[in-house]
Amino acid sequence: MYYPEPIAKLIEAFTHLPGVGPKTAGRLAFHVLRMKEDDVIDFAKALVNVKRNLHYCSVCGNITDTDPCQICQDKTRDASVICVIQEAKDLVAMERTREFDGYYHVLHGAISPIEGIGPDDIKLKELLNRLSDERVQELILATNPNIEGEATAMYISRLVKPFNIKVTRIAHGLPVGGDLEYADEVTLSKALEGRREL
Amino acid sequence: MYYPEPIAKLIEAFTHLPGVGPKTAGRLAFHVLRMKEDDVIDFAKALVNVKRNLHYCSVCGNITDTDPCQICQDKTRDASVICVIQEAKDLVAMERTREFDGYYHVLHGAISPIEGIGPDDIKLKELLNRLSDERVQELILATNPNIEGEATAMYISRLVKPFNIKVTRIAHGLPVGGDLEYADEVTLSKALEGRREL
Repeated sequence: MYYPEPIAKLIEAFTHLPGVGPKTAGRLAFHVLRMKEDDVIDFAKALVNVKRNLHYCSVCGNITDTDPCQICQDKTRDASVICVIQEAKDLVAMERTREFDGYYHVLHGAISPIEGIGPDDIKLKELLNRLSDERVQELILATNPNIEGEATAMYISRLVKPFNIKVTRIAHGLPVGGDLEYADEVTLSKALEGRREL
Repeated sequence: MYYPEPIAKLIEAFTHLPGVGPKTAGRLAFHVLRMKEDDVIDFAKALVNVKRNLHYCSVCGNITDTDPCQICQDKTRDASVICVIQEAKDLVAMERTREFDGYYHVLHGAISPIEGIGPDDIKLKELLNRLSDERVQELILATNPNIEGEATAMYISRLVKPFNIKVTRIAHGLPVGGDLEYADEVTLSKALEGRREL
């Protein structure tokens, strides 16, 4: 027994977080010990509140404390475009660009036969239901640029064909600020393939 | 507004931890969202308990949920040696060696004129009080091998001189498993200086 029980329990709790090993967990627990009691209580409340007060938006699947979520409630956005993403955190990434003002649809996963995730395990039915809204003219597929994301995008594009809606896929290419020398060959060939006239 | 309020608050709370930036905090918060509610509640309780149920041992200054701490209560340990360390977590590191079975004294800091920490700001008076116990024959100074730790060790060794107690300093040298090639010159010269006959 090196640690008194309360601190051992907290270290244990921290190690359950992603990317936190026993050493980091120890450092974090000792940091908590030095924090002000009020701050620790706020931290504990924030943890429990996230679990208790958040749920998924019944329209788009985004994480929200209101239903529908703030984005779905926002009537100023462009109802003609729905951006399809894998996870709620991808929505934050998209919003950060300030370039998109349509609505979202969160799939909560991607099709992955290896992991046994099929089309019925992600929110595809909900997406199809939304397409009956006649205002929708374009579906932007912003699933991840990996095997699962591509497969999901392909699957959706075929599924949506009967609806006569434009389906687009976000571009592949070199990341801005990247270095040609260090780009992998797949990304580079995608960048070549997607070249545009200046 | 990208995040619903509960998650924004949790992200904010996570960023107060050492080594956790906004990106990591976001990842951790979304992880909490996917955790089981019971686990989150246990996590929150562990946080608050650390703050509420732990205090410093009135004898050695170690972090404990009993008073005196388990180590100070342990009568089987060797009362002739006190190991002086800077922080309670250093105690855990010492215990892990399984080589030391004396008692400890946690200074809760080191003398650092630059940061305005003087001899009165660390638990030196408490250490001197413990030296009146006649069983104490040796003080092992295991403060950190940096400027503050060395200065503190020097200060203590002078302070303790009148007590006629042996004062030792843990050895400097190459870390085990280390590589001579990459050792800095100060460590290497300390290793040379402290060489022993085989």
